[in-house]
Amino acid sequence: MSDINKVVLAYSGGLDTSVIVKWLQETYDCEVVTFTADIGQGEEVEPAREKAKGLGVKEIYIEDLREEFARDYVFPMFRANTVYEGEYLLGTSIARPLIARRLVEIANETGADAIAHGATGKGNDQVRFELGAYALKPGIKVIAPWREWDLNSRQKLLDYCDHHGIPVEKQQGKSPYSMDANLLHISYEGEVLEDPWAQAEDDMWRWSVSPEQAPDEPTILDVSYENGDIVAINGERMKPHEVLSYLNRVAGDNGIGRIDIVENRYVGMKSRGCYETPGGTVMLKAHRAIESITLDREVAHLKDSIMPRYAEVVYNGYWWAPERRAMQALIDETQGPVNGDVRLKLYKGNVEVLGRRSEDSLFDEKVATFEEDEGAYDQKDAEGFIKLNALRLRIAASKGRSL
Amino acid sequence: MSDINKVVLAYSGGLDTSVIVKWLQETYDCEVVTFTADIGQGEEVEPAREKAKGLGVKEIYIEDLREEFARDYVFPMFRANTVYEGEYLLGTSIARPLIARRLVEIANETGADAIAHGATGKGNDQVRFELGAYALKPGIKVIAPWREWDLNSRQKLLDYCDHHGIPVEKQQGKSPYSMDANLLHISYEGEVLEDPWAQAEDDMWRWSVSPEQAPDEPTILDVSYENGDIVAINGERMKPHEVLSYLNRVAGDNGIGRIDIVENRYVGMKSRGCYETPGGTVMLKAHRAIESITLDREVAHLKDSIMPRYAEVVYNGYWWAPERRAMQALIDETQGPVNGDVRLKLYKGNVEVLGRRSEDSLFDEKVATFEEDEGAYDQKDAEGFIKLNALRLRIAASKGRSL
Amino acid sequence: MSDINKVVLAYSGGLDTSVIVKWLQETYDCEVVTFTADIGQGEEVEPAREKAKGLGVKEIYIEDLREEFARDYVFPMFRANTVYEGEYLLGTSIARPLIARRLVEIANETGADAIAHGATGKGNDQVRFELGAYALKPGIKVIAPWREWDLNSRQKLLDYCDHHGIPVEKQQGKSPYSMDANLLHISYEGEVLEDPWAQAEDDMWRWSVSPEQAPDEPTILDVSYENGDIVAINGERMKPHEVLSYLNRVAGDNGIGRIDIVENRYVGMKSRGCYETPGGTVMLKAHRAIESITLDREVAHLKDSIMPRYAEVVYNGYWWAPERRAMQALIDETQGPVNGDVRLKLYKGNVEVLGRRSEDSLFDEKVATFEEDEGAYDQKDAEGFIKLNALRLRIAASKGRSL
Amino acid sequence: MSDINKVVLAYSGGLDTSVIVKWLQETYDCEVVTFTADIGQGEEVEPAREKAKGLGVKEIYIEDLREEFARDYVFPMFRANTVYEGEYLLGTSIARPLIARRLVEIANETGADAIAHGATGKGNDQVRFELGAYALKPGIKVIAPWREWDLNSRQKLLDYCDHHGIPVEKQQGKSPYSMDANLLHISYEGEVLEDPWAQAEDDMWRWSVSPEQAPDEPTILDVSYENGDIVAINGERMKPHEVLSYLNRVAGDNGIGRIDIVENRYVGMKSRGCYETPGGTVMLKAHRAIESITLDREVAHLKDSIMPRYAEVVYNGYWWAPERRAMQALIDETQGPVNGDVRLKLYKGNVEVLGRRSEDSLFDEKVATFEEDEGAYDQKDAEGFIKLNALRLRIAASKGRSL
Repeated sequence: MSDINKVVLAYSGGLDTSVIVKWLQETYDCEVVTFTADIGQGEEVEPAREKAKGLGVKEIYIEDLREEFARDYVFPMFRANTVYEGEYLLGTSIARPLIARRLVEIANETGADAIAHGATGKGNDQVRFELGAYALKPGIKVIAPWREWDLNSRQKLLDYCDHHGIPVEKQQGKSPYSMDANLLHISYEGEVLEDPWAQAEDDMWRWSVSPEQAPDEPTILDVSYENGDIVAINGERMKPHEVLSYLNRVAGDNGIGRIDIVENRYVGMKSRGCYETPGGTVMLKAHRAIESITLDREVAHLKDSIMPRYAEVVYNGYWWAPERRAMQALIDETQGPVNGDVRLKLYKGNVEVLGRRSEDSLFDEKVATFEEDEGAYDQKDAEGFIKLNALRLRIAASKGRSL
Repeated sequence: MSDINKVVLAYSGGLDTSVIVKWLQETYDCEVVTFTADIGQGEEVEPAREKAKGLGVKEIYIEDLREEFARDYVFPMFRANTVYEGEYLLGTSIARPLIARRLVEIANETGADAIAHGATGKGNDQVRFELGAYALKPGIKVIAPWREWDLNSRQKLLDYCDHHGIPVEKQQGKSPYSMDANLLHISYEGEVLEDPWAQAEDDMWRWSVSPEQAPDEPTILDVSYENGDIVAINGERMKPHEVLSYLNRVAGDNGIGRIDIVENRYVGMKSRGCYETPGGTVMLKAHRAIESITLDREVAHLKDSIMPRYAEVVYNGYWWAPERRAMQALIDETQGPVNGDVRLKLYKGNVEVLGRRSEDSLFDEKVATFEEDEGAYDQKDAEGFIKLNALRLRIAASKGRSL
Repeated sequence: MSDINKVVLAYSGGLDTSVIVKWLQETYDCEVVTFTADIGQGEEVEPAREKAKGLGVKEIYIEDLREEFARDYVFPMFRANTVYEGEYLLGTSIARPLIARRLVEIANETGADAIAHGATGKGNDQVRFELGAYALKPGIKVIAPWREWDLNSRQKLLDYCDHHGIPVEKQQGKSPYSMDANLLHISYEGEVLEDPWAQAEDDMWRWSVSPEQAPDEPTILDVSYENGDIVAINGERMKPHEVLSYLNRVAGDNGIGRIDIVENRYVGMKSRGCYETPGGTVMLKAHRAIESITLDREVAHLKDSIMPRYAEVVYNGYWWAPERRAMQALIDETQGPVNGDVRLKLYKGNVEVLGRRSEDSLFDEKVATFEEDEGAYDQKDAEGFIKLNALRLRIAASKGRSL
Repeated sequence: MSDINKVVLAYSGGLDTSVIVKWLQETYDCEVVTFTADIGQGEEVEPAREKAKGLGVKEIYIEDLREEFARDYVFPMFRANTVYEGEYLLGTSIARPLIARRLVEIANETGADAIAHGATGKGNDQVRFELGAYALKPGIKVIAPWREWDLNSRQKLLDYCDHHGIPVEKQQGKSPYSMDANLLHISYEGEVLEDPWAQAEDDMWRWSVSPEQAPDEPTILDVSYENGDIVAINGERMKPHEVLSYLNRVAGDNGIGRIDIVENRYVGMKSRGCYETPGGTVMLKAHRAIESITLDREVAHLKDSIMPRYAEVVYNGYWWAPERRAMQALIDETQGPVNGDVRLKLYKGNVEVLGRRSEDSLFDEKVATFEEDEGAYDQKDAEGFIKLNALRLRIAASKGRSL
């Protein structure tokens, strides 16, 4: 049926992608290479090896990408204070470009002529995987089984497994939700959430306690920045993925980082999602705080004006696109002086900034003070400042222009 | 000394503006008209009458502007999801244009040739008052005593009172902070806050309890929107200022709405401020939630891309400027379908969205579902969508352009 | 083969769409309704009636839409000073939404269940037609024969005509280029233009003389604006389509309005196009000139900052989308004072502004003069204005921040 | 009167700045250092030496800054396709930051504690000089005699010269206009131009012939780009300032580059200016042309969306500000592939692009062709592309949302 000889599959080891392995072998009469990455989803990746072997896979890639993921994707994005549609910290979006890149690289290494993924035809992830793949290897073929096959119900999948001898594990406590997890977040979609008026169930959440269940004592944290990135917590230097792990734990313990939103997908529909992003929620707050004393006003406003577009570009899957790189150049250019410490208080769902300090602070106490400033600021300058800023308004009004 | 015969003063009834009354009378040998407005600051305004009389003022304006303030200023601003520098809900900024307008109108009514205010030469408020005044009455003279006089310390002010027989009340529990309050918020500046690393004191806050002191039981609220504005809470219709009052109370009781930030003033310095905006914090969250199901994606993103500029315009004092009106036209144009209900949970500092619904919802469950959608969405369309969105990237890559 | 009973076709009367009539009848076994509009393309539309009849069409719509096209589409777009990619005045783009709307309305009137057009699968026009149709009638079916059939060469089309008895006129002087024309412009693509380095041929152009061939005497024009639209030329009131006709003629006679560009299509490729937009070129220049004295600075800059997105939205085919309407609301809000006269000189390809005047002018000669201004402007205000605008820079420099 | 010991003056050698030398010496009892730069204004700078000596100046700086000006200021600005308010190529604005920087550096070298300039209190140049100076040396004092003295008429200036023995040359053919010139442009303000309806006089213009007087034969030029900058013309490599000189000459000879506009000054007023920018006009057109084949679509649109702000920043005098640097980082990041040749035709005021080519072209003839493309583009992809782009519109319409 096909001219495809070998395909690299983003393989989780779960039921769906196991079915895909078999379906690809059958449908395309081709070899399947599996690629399984630890990006902090919180599940062991090594078991995927035996499963893949059991499905007849000969080339099996299992990799720990947590450091790279945090350092080269999550951290650069947080330099921009990126938030999609006012709420979403892009936890799923930011993991896709890394997977896309490795799929393409493994295709190059193994001589595969196609890649495949387990994302559905309704979501954003198919777009993110495929845009990345096409951008990095324009001639690659992409197979998206969910857009092709007719196994579009749970029962059909189970029948397929039964028919093909794919072992189906009884998963105790398996969530009914469609979930995705990595070092930055875990997400929930589907089921009761498909009605935006329906309340999410308490037992859905996995990474954080509820504010109600969080401890009665706050946690105080000092986070330290260099060039816009967190490099230490409470004085202990950490690598980016260690920062995320640490913050996920303490923020999750304090009930921080849950949101419940309706978002606009790139493919054109609205969808309801619940997200836990404990560490990211802390990072956003802290980054704004350190920038508040180290960034020039106009630079900060410029960043704010560009951020919605940057967020859109990342959400839509254009990480591997020159417009993302151009905006990143602007953002990174501004982060040199973003150094210093932020003291935070975590308490029952809240992240409060208690203080911020920096060798590169632009906060000038002599100028800002309500007390005698010894000439640091001449209040009389304000009159001319206001007069000329008002000039266009005064001229308009004097010519009868009404507001 | 002057060609000023009569000046309208924004008069709080407090010590500073009482000194200004006397200082104006003396320095300019002119009549002073006082204007005192209730914009929800939480203090009685009527006592200002006796104080003004005691200072020899003949024309005394005391007005309740709460409804107008909420309806014509706060609510339009919230339609834009306005946040300055990622954090600040513009509580002080939004009250100034109304005061400026009334000062000018009263000057017109009383034949005054000048207005005066008690804002310092270092802050934003002088700019906001004066830009508004100049925009509405270009020939008006503006007197800003803090920029002119030499009463630049507490002691000199008290000496001045002593010398001129201005009664100085012993204010029990008088805050040492520079404060400003209205229906939307209360702010704190100065004192220990002048060091951005120093932690704000617990007893500084006035309007809200801390999350720690908030009740252990959450409060559930249903807020109802029409054309982007809240019109009812828990099914009870309310006017805009009633909405704000109500939300301030219940949100403040639940420890909601405190922030502690360093902001960039229009006059060029950084300053540290603490703000309590209980109701506004709820309104922002709720408005985004109702928009999430009723606004088109591109409209929502357009609003997000314009918001930082809108916020800057309001913060800088350009409410009475045509660029604000032009942006407002865009924003208001989008709010027709922003109708429906949002269910919220308030708990120890947190505002959570539990659900949202609308007759004008664009959420399409048939399209969004993970279940069989009976043809509402053809997953095969995604392939072409991705292929053409990737085309420019594929061409670039095929021509050797690297990322 | 199909569940389509009746289809409305955008019918030019030319060979391609005549083939489509027959092909639709055959392929879908359905009735075809033809719709032919005069939007100023400069060819008679009435002959399309006989041709359609000859093809067995029973419901034939032939309409003069020039006034509506100019008034409701071209003029609103010019209020925004719309230019795509710095050069293109969107002549083709702006005609599509009107055609899309009429196709849908005629489908409603005739009970048709589909529409069809003759645009190829590579271009922007298919997108513009179809986005408009879907936005106005979401259940409509769209047939795009060029994406479906295999008549993908000139010879195959002629064979098809031969086989089906479709008369093929020998068109004397038929251009080899792919062309599109309406009141705003005429475009050329294909042939030698497919090499972006190849020079366009002199005899390609149809609407304008070359600057070399233009008269040695300039033409002076006075154009008068009301609310941002031209309402009179040389004192004679004209309707929008009369304005365009008039300006096309005099500007074309003066060699004005040719461009030769490579543009980025929405479907992802670059394409080379040559355009003649004589009247539009004059209108853009004149509109900027009248705005230069009647628009507030910040409003003008706001419009400039939004324009690229507005242009993109129109180019991509989203006229019938809420984000276009929202931006239009902002633009139209600003045009109330855009009244007055602009004097222009047209000469051998050049449009020069000689002068502009308005009752609503914000140009203040007293303030602007280099002569003694009698206190209209206090130069000393500039010092404070500069000092405070420099404050953030001075603080940064004083803290060792380098540039 | 003053604590100023030495001041560096931007000295042209003309009457006004000669008066300023004397006035500074008298008023501030200080030493004056003169700084005269050749930035391509087209007048000899060496004669300034004798004049300065005659005024008792001991430290005299005369420098040829043309190369630096073109390379480090003009060229980076043109990478952004910078146009202010749709028309103005910022010829005056872009020269000020260089002068400001040299004034500060010379102050550092000579131990001066102040700088001075001859710009008036009404214009933009004072702002540009002073913002630059403050940003580079925050403690510097700035003296702007036009804002201080009372020599506010021609006659008073002449009287001052008479009284102080400053020689006044009879300047044959001296223009009555306020003019400014450098390698990029020459500007005219004042006199008859103060009425925006009055036509500029033919004999005002200095650098270009009128289109009427331009030769009947066109000039064809090939300009070659590397990294967004012109590096060669007609195959001959040139330095940036040589490029500008060359283009000014040939474009001026062909009647290219005159504009007559009303612009919005930063200090709040509208002013009318006429500008000749022959070379710059060619450069803008050519740069857009080379970008049209080498820049990715979204990168080009991103640049277009940022350009108005970049232009505003440069116009307002914030070259030496971090927001300009951040935007420049974005712009420069995009220019790596902006390489290749543009063929231009200059003829009686017109600049036409005849062709463009590049090793880095993203124009794909195989994809773009109207002919058989052998599978380079699958037209069927367009259907899915349109369907999903229309999805949000279809859902809205199906739910009764009207447009």
